[in-house]
Amino acid sequence: MAGKTLKSELGWSTVDRITVRGKDLPGEILGHLNLGDMAFLELAGRVPSAGESKIFNAMVVTLVEHGITPSAIVARMTYLGAPEALQAAVAGGLLGLGSVFVGSMEGVARILSEAVANGKNASTVLAENKRMPGLGHPIHKPLDPRSVRLFEIARETGHYGKYCRLMEEIAKTRGITLNATGAIGALACELGLDWKIVKGLGVMARAIGLVGHILEETREPMAQEIWERVDEEASAHLKSKK
Amino acid sequence: MAGKTLKSELGWSTVDRITVRGKDLPGEILGHLNLGDMAFLELAGRVPSAGESKIFNAMVVTLVEHGITPSAIVARMTYLGAPEALQAAVAGGLLGLGSVFVGSMEGVARILSEAVANGKNASTVLAENKRMPGLGHPIHKPLDPRSVRLFEIARETGHYGKYCRLMEEIAKTRGITLNATGAIGALACELGLDWKIVKGLGVMARAIGLVGHILEETREPMAQEIWERVDEEASAHLKSKK
Amino acid sequence: MAGKTLKSELGWSTVDRITVRGKDLPGEILGHLNLGDMAFLELAGRVPSAGESKIFNAMVVTLVEHGITPSAIVARMTYLGAPEALQAAVAGGLLGLGSVFVGSMEGVARILSEAVANGKNASTVLAENKRMPGLGHPIHKPLDPRSVRLFEIARETGHYGKYCRLMEEIAKTRGITLNATGAIGALACELGLDWKIVKGLGVMARAIGLVGHILEETREPMAQEIWERVDEEASAHLKSKK
Amino acid sequence: MAGKTLKSELGWSTVDRITVRGKDLPGEILGHLNLGDMAFLELAGRVPSAGESKIFNAMVVTLVEHGITPSAIVARMTYLGAPEALQAAVAGGLLGLGSVFVGSMEGVARILSEAVANGKNASTVLAENKRMPGLGHPIHKPLDPRSVRLFEIARETGHYGKYCRLMEEIAKTRGITLNATGAIGALACELGLDWKIVKGLGVMARAIGLVGHILEETREPMAQEIWERVDEEASAHLKSKK
Repeated sequence: MAGKTLKSELGWSTVDRITVRGKDLPGEILGHLNLGDMAFLELAGRVPSAGESKIFNAMVVTLVEHGITPSAIVARMTYLGAPEALQAAVAGGLLGLGSVFVGSMEGVARILSEAVANGKNASTVLAENKRMPGLGHPIHKPLDPRSVRLFEIARETGHYGKYCRLMEEIAKTRGITLNATGAIGALACELGLDWKIVKGLGVMARAIGLVGHILEETREPMAQEIWERVDEEASAHLKSKK
Repeated sequence: MAGKTLKSELGWSTVDRITVRGKDLPGEILGHLNLGDMAFLELAGRVPSAGESKIFNAMVVTLVEHGITPSAIVARMTYLGAPEALQAAVAGGLLGLGSVFVGSMEGVARILSEAVANGKNASTVLAENKRMPGLGHPIHKPLDPRSVRLFEIARETGHYGKYCRLMEEIAKTRGITLNATGAIGALACELGLDWKIVKGLGVMARAIGLVGHILEETREPMAQEIWERVDEEASAHLKSKK
Repeated sequence: MAGKTLKSELGWSTVDRITVRGKDLPGEILGHLNLGDMAFLELAGRVPSAGESKIFNAMVVTLVEHGITPSAIVARMTYLGAPEALQAAVAGGLLGLGSVFVGSMEGVARILSEAVANGKNASTVLAENKRMPGLGHPIHKPLDPRSVRLFEIARETGHYGKYCRLMEEIAKTRGITLNATGAIGALACELGLDWKIVKGLGVMARAIGLVGHILEETREPMAQEIWERVDEEASAHLKSKK
Repeated sequence: MAGKTLKSELGWSTVDRITVRGKDLPGEILGHLNLGDMAFLELAGRVPSAGESKIFNAMVVTLVEHGITPSAIVARMTYLGAPEALQAAVAGGLLGLGSVFVGSMEGVARILSEAVANGKNASTVLAENKRMPGLGHPIHKPLDPRSVRLFEIARETGHYGKYCRLMEEIAKTRGITLNATGAIGALACELGLDWKIVKGLGVMARAIGLVGHILEETREPMAQEIWERVDEEASAHLKSKK
């Protein structure tokens, strides 16, 4: 039972005080920080400046709602069976945010931070990463309007720096769309966020969007209908053999 | 394969446009709405006013970080085994936000909206709900400083109305602390949010906080140590019998 | 740091021994108990008799595979986004096993154990439970062939007792199919299992089935196609307005 | 809406028949197959022989219960907050079965199947895989009694073949314990299971064990006590600064 001492700096309470990240929650946070600022405080350990607040909020807002994704279908299907456990429906929807979708943001941040630290240029990065994440989009070509807008806000707030520049060079060199996850991965580096947590930006944002999908499912349900259609079609070849 | 037509109003895209809730994402949302405003847009279907933005952001910000909770321990323990799947660690942490903890907010919103619709007073509500949610706190007595501050912001923004009043009367009648989930449940009613989705405020907020805990776990780990201590203690009586 | 002492009886190890539920895992369990017997050992704290083994295995086997359910769709959709985290795809599929589907088994076990303990008959049980779980089936009418077979095995192994009898009377009184969850709920009572854990029979069984669905998804994928169809249909009315 | 046709071979039903993997569930499966056999049917598409049944059941039974693991702590902590959603507690416990713990079984199966297909020997495999999975154990040295017993059953049932032999050579060459995940990974290859699904053996088995932990938590709780201890210790350094 010796071992190391457990420690956390995130939050603690006494009878009349609640402190989060060293700040008094009621007095210094509530009414002063918006939800994106609070996320920044959690991840950076400090309150963002006005410029950081603007670009960081834009980054996470971008990731909230993508319409009918596998995540949204999962959340709705889960809610169909367990409406008493909304938290499980949201959690279910988050589980698919793995290497295929949201993971690209993390990859971009990891590659760019390593590349800038070692003075690599676009060609070197591409030579080392045949499957460079953050590039290409099935719909938005040649430009992803989210990347354009995010870099516009970044320039306005003074956060368009070497990571954004390198990412744009990479996309140009490859001759392919710089998608939103590429832009956000680069911006996460500009803000000094640890690449290991960059996927978390997508996870927290999507949790918000999934609550929206569950609300819509209570009003305009689709889960039962999807289930019935898929079940009927998928077993049709077996039933006909009977 | 007839059935109903599937429909969603949340978001859709074409080559050069991305629309969320009827708004152009790059042009009308990014740089204009903060993350809390975006959540409000998802749940209310419209952009919040300045006052709504202030009170709604304060409500969800309150729920982001509660220090070392079972949720936080779960997220850290899950990350220990699957560091490649940060989304699963966050999802794991959300799964325990059930009837015991965050569920009280939903209960408050449901009871208050029904009570106000039927003109019930505090005594009637308490007679009907022996275990009225939103009351009492193990640490914060007699006042929960978060409730005090949230109602202060509510007054300032014109959102302290009949639901807040009824909830305060309920707490006074019972002679017990009005805790933060009670205040937020009442405020959700003031903002016209559907009680069925009120637990979702806690779920989305905590997703943000859990990313913060995972980041701290990468720097100041505790999961391995907790595991070893618990394992050793829990099987000590069996090993000694050997 | 005082508090209660943590204790678990489930399993422990030393350099050369591994003990589960008081039995030597390599010597007394491996090669001797099948997977259903092992589940029985976990839940009942003892090795099942031959008869108990037969009926318990049949109960859980019944619950493994139900074709294309919301659970199966969720597991496949989650695997689409995070193929590196198979455990998350299975977990996602389990999350919807709530009050609507698998929960009925738990309800049956709870109601029957309380009724038998208090000498209630079918009419009284039905009067007290307007929405009696375990009754009715959308396809299997008037008989659910699984219930018929499970009760046949129960008679053969000496486990058709007062709980099964009461459940059959309840179905007859209501004039409706006794479905498989009703039969399994009754049989769980016959075996003396705690009703609070009865939903767990469905959860463990479905975990097996979901691994089967994920395997099929790697060979005959459907998740991507479902996603594309739903997305296209659900936003068609918005795009046409453009 | 064209696209590919959705198809599943796993199961389907009509009014009076329920078919799973081409077999009549009530007539050919219930009372005939135990739970491990049913899992084999799901993964191999056929009923196991007597020998296959014995070794496969032993493999999955090995993985059911490992005492107090991070998974078990997570399931208990989740149940503390959401006792109404047992499925979420089990799912939560599964989420950490990632690369660090259960993932090694998958790695072993992948490496061995590739090595045997290409005629590689132990030295080549070790040269290619510096961090060879399936080797070493913190407690069981020099032998893991589970591996010894599993290979004994394998010999008895005629399933000790080239994959087991290669894995034992690998352990001998490295001079380190062949642990249970190494043995099971090799045996999965002997049975012809797809390595992509081998992690699923651990996931399904652990789902059973986690239900056992939740049952024990209802009788001998530890989650609340763990929470209180960790919370107190982790914030002690902050409170003392006050």
